[in-house]
Amino acid sequence: MTAAEARRRFAAARVARLATVDAHGHPHLVPIVFALARDTIYSVIDAKPKRTTRLRRLQNVSANPWVSVLVDHYDDADWDALWWVRADGSARVLELAEPEAHDALQLLAERYPQQRPAGPMLAIDVERWSGWPAGVGA
Amino acid sequence: MTAAEARRRFAAARVARLATVDAHGHPHLVPIVFALARDTIYSVIDAKPKRTTRLRRLQNVSANPWVSVLVDHYDDADWDALWWVRADGSARVLELAEPEAHDALQLLAERYPQQRPAGPMLAIDVERWSGWPAGVGA
Repeated sequence: MTAAEARRRFAAARVARLATVDAHGHPHLVPIVFALARDTIYSVIDAKPKRTTRLRRLQNVSANPWVSVLVDHYDDADWDALWWVRADGSARVLELAEPEAHDALQLLAERYPQQRPAGPMLAIDVERWSGWPAGVGA
Repeated sequence: MTAAEARRRFAAARVARLATVDAHGHPHLVPIVFALARDTIYSVIDAKPKRTTRLRRLQNVSANPWVSVLVDHYDDADWDALWWVRADGSARVLELAEPEAHDALQLLAERYPQQRPAGPMLAIDVERWSGWPAGVGA
């Protein structure tokens, strides 16, 4: 699938899954809601109850900036309709007071009025959009 | 959430997302279908068209066995109903001729009669089941 088609499908999704890696090479996975601006994915830590360890995504990107973010469509009844798109890139941690985070918060609020941002925010600069099946949108 | 409740929800899911890590610490993410036997997740490479690079999951676990597998529930209309469960562990690559793979293929065929296994198979030995929200099933 073309990078443009992969990006289009990613942008339209409501939820994605974020993989980060710790300093010892262990992966960590969480679902995220997000907003996309140009080729940067923004995801903010929200105010929902969580254990401290749930912020491992932040510790991980401080040790290793490489991340992968996946959106997929699954349908038990029609495997011919399955697809996925992936964004690979590197992540930065932003404090909410930074101008870039301020702009991203507005995008997030438009997409998810129910979200209660607590911060900080992850900004993921996508270096590669890819997807499957290969022929789609080519 | 208790490990037992996380495992129960994971076992009932039809699709999951697998994170592997390459020798340089880059994560890789793909959706997978799977079967669970005791605390081992089985997922077979199927015959669907794919580029060679899609087998990066196999190269990655050969270089770094640590993997993370996520199942989540998202509902735009009810964020109080969101949940996710995660299996963290280490992966092995099995050839389909091995007895362990033979048994797993039967489980997979029962769950996914539409799948056409081509092999090889990943066997993921789960060391930790976890989930969110924390209070569920406690």
